[in-house]
Amino acid sequence: MNIAKMIDHSLLRPELTSDDVRRGCEIAARRQVASVCVRPSDVEVATIALTGTGVLVGTVAGFPHGDTRTTIKAAETRALVDAGADEIDMVLHIGRLRDGDTGYVHDDIAAVVAAARGRIVKVILENAYLTDEQKILGCRIAEQAGAHFVKTSTGFAPGGATLADIQLMRAAVSPHVEVKAAGGVRTLDVLLTLHEAGATRFGATATETILDDYAARQHGEQPTTV
Amino acid sequence: MNIAKMIDHSLLRPELTSDDVRRGCEIAARRQVASVCVRPSDVEVATIALTGTGVLVGTVAGFPHGDTRTTIKAAETRALVDAGADEIDMVLHIGRLRDGDTGYVHDDIAAVVAAARGRIVKVILENAYLTDEQKILGCRIAEQAGAHFVKTSTGFAPGGATLADIQLMRAAVSPHVEVKAAGGVRTLDVLLTLHEAGATRFGATATETILDDYAARQHGEQPTTV
Repeated sequence: MNIAKMIDHSLLRPELTSDDVRRGCEIAARRQVASVCVRPSDVEVATIALTGTGVLVGTVAGFPHGDTRTTIKAAETRALVDAGADEIDMVLHIGRLRDGDTGYVHDDIAAVVAAARGRIVKVILENAYLTDEQKILGCRIAEQAGAHFVKTSTGFAPGGATLADIQLMRAAVSPHVEVKAAGGVRTLDVLLTLHEAGATRFGATATETILDDYAARQHGEQPTTV
Repeated sequence: MNIAKMIDHSLLRPELTSDDVRRGCEIAARRQVASVCVRPSDVEVATIALTGTGVLVGTVAGFPHGDTRTTIKAAETRALVDAGADEIDMVLHIGRLRDGDTGYVHDDIAAVVAAARGRIVKVILENAYLTDEQKILGCRIAEQAGAHFVKTSTGFAPGGATLADIQLMRAAVSPHVEVKAAGGVRTLDVLLTLHEAGATRFGATATETILDDYAARQHGEQPTTV
């Protein structure tokens, strides 16, 4: 099992310096993860750093609150794709989902999918603020609007990926849609448990520790994380 | 002293429903605060709710991380002003300020000021991530770029307005620029202390409690907050 190719190495903290971003891209290239997930203003730097490495450039739109206007989320997505982004992780409008305004939530996602022009779009629900019913509704709307993934969390809300949520989200979408776990995926054991439950992509910052532990376990050694 | 006219009633949490926003605007109108500060997608609703009340409509751009691309921050600001916003609270690029990339930080703010076409622009530094030297630099760049206010925090980082930061920011800008305190301004005493130190605008969610306590104190009663 190629664990590395299920990891989006997250470089989203607002206080990261440009050196932090460059070092993160080096780690991503060396460890051959699926992608980096960088801030919108870092897409060019990541694209230059990762060209020819086989590691994709992901970024975010309407992040982390999802309450940006739809036209601006779409304009942002267009600019990000033009700058070299391969994947877009967008946040749906959490408040409108809680309102039960399914039309707004659908059209907001569909505008980003259209602006992404075929690039992968992952829709972040931010489960910390949702009931199970709202999570299921959000997943279904995301699929109808053309999303490729549904994703648990931004990593900036009080709460991240849980086993129960991965099971619920996996059951809420068809096999055409994948599930990404993010927020609190800090150990190999958490990743493996969520993978068993149906998640196929993971947002992580502890990428090196997770991959080192996996390599050690393959060789029958004790993990460094508990 | 008109405390109410120094308060921006904050309605920025991503999970707020549309009912929450409408109720918040009603409170703002009834209590005659300076403005509401709503999410970008709520500007039309707030504008309708507050027309004729004397309460301004504020909103945010590049919020809360400040790492949106400059062209998108500017496009967002244009759209917000077109939708009826009177004031724009933008987040500067925290990572670039930590890089020491003063040109980037300046141009990013100046683009928003230009797009705001004369509306008030407040520049959020997000002090939690900055050294004192970086805070001073951020204030000076904001003033040079045409900002009307410098502001301590978004309310979403680990740390908000402190007395030391208000003193430092007040000293870093000329008398033409005002200082807004936000994040943790939950009591009348905190507000009065920060006002004494030079802050003239306050982001608050506990608006009613603060104003009730002020009215009670004017009448010689005990405050409800401690």
